[in-house]
Amino acid sequence: MPLEQLNFITGNRNKLAEVKAILGDVVPLQSKSLDLTEIQGAMEDISKDKCRRAATIVGFSILFTITIARCNVLNIWKIGGPVLTEDTCLCFNALKELPGPYIKWFLQALGHEGLNNLLIAYKDKSAQAVCTFAYSSGPGHEPILFQGRVTGTIVPARGPTNFGWDPIFEYDGETYAEMDKAKKNTLSHRAIALSKLKQWLQTQ
Amino acid sequence: MPLEQLNFITGNRNKLAEVKAILGDVVPLQSKSLDLTEIQGAMEDISKDKCRRAATIVGFSILFTITIARCNVLNIWKIGGPVLTEDTCLCFNALKELPGPYIKWFLQALGHEGLNNLLIAYKDKSAQAVCTFAYSSGPGHEPILFQGRVTGTIVPARGPTNFGWDPIFEYDGETYAEMDKAKKNTLSHRAIALSKLKQWLQTQ
Repeated sequence: MPLEQLNFITGNRNKLAEVKAILGDVVPLQSKSLDLTEIQGAMEDISKDKCRRAATIVGFSILFTITIARCNVLNIWKIGGPVLTEDTCLCFNALKELPGPYIKWFLQALGHEGLNNLLIAYKDKSAQAVCTFAYSSGPGHEPILFQGRVTGTIVPARGPTNFGWDPIFEYDGETYAEMDKAKKNTLSHRAIALSKLKQWLQTQ
Repeated sequence: MPLEQLNFITGNRNKLAEVKAILGDVVPLQSKSLDLTEIQGAMEDISKDKCRRAATIVGFSILFTITIARCNVLNIWKIGGPVLTEDTCLCFNALKELPGPYIKWFLQALGHEGLNNLLIAYKDKSAQAVCTFAYSSGPGHEPILFQGRVTGTIVPARGPTNFGWDPIFEYDGETYAEMDKAKKNTLSHRAIALSKLKQWLQTQ
């Protein structure tokens, strides 16, 4: 049975636009902005933990509404509905995949130049952009992961600077920031992960 | 009223020895090893979050025991007792205080040489060793923080290598690893934090 709606947990318009461009024709997406703390650890554990908590929050916020309305609480999981969370890591190979899941703190503190500086000691400037989508059908349902991984090179910033570390991640001669959006949506780490998710959703 | 016992949450013998050396004459310490996930974020938020969860786990594990024994559950908070957690950060000033709370992942992945390499692009090799103890008197009691901070320099490893990043943190000409233990226990970031905690405990 096709999904009626999927709650994509994000407060980031750019990410929402990317996800809608790829997934919009398969399932109606509703974005929800939740302030979810992330744990430290392996990227898969971080993704699963965040998705579990998102499913609980979305599920129980609906439970509250339903209780007020005196409706049948047995419907809560269906109404709370599935949630989708997303995590992005930027893994520098010379740094044994770090900053990895901590990239947002490093980008925020050091900027593009500072991220390049982390690799000055190494010839190997290769990096992996990793996107992990976690899907849970509701509270208590173990998240399923869909991961996309692209290997590129860390370079001095080129292109528009409005989307995170896109200007310093080069793939096939272009940085993500320089790349045409439509092209990026076919080959990016997020596109690969979404393609796996889309394929799975179509079989549900 | 002096505390009857304080549950120090650690699985690290070296840390326990340091804490006992400074705090042992003020309060009986019992060490408990709990596998507590840490969140990402500001170091103070990380410390408080971990301490809250430790207090809940220690409190409720006692509740369980008491219920089995059919004793008065009103005693649970007193018996669950206060907990003490500890977090250590190593903040490189040139990296805007990073790796900071993520230092354990960086040390594990990159080792001492790799940590030095992170600073190759910068003349400023200064760093702050920060220790934060968080104390909670039981489940639901907001943690109180005691923080110690020492400014030193990141250097190539010198001295015994059995205690984390001690060999690469130099203070006043010696690395922590080279330093006499008794001397280190009077001036380290952990000693400063513990001294604040000790002073506070003595007024309780």
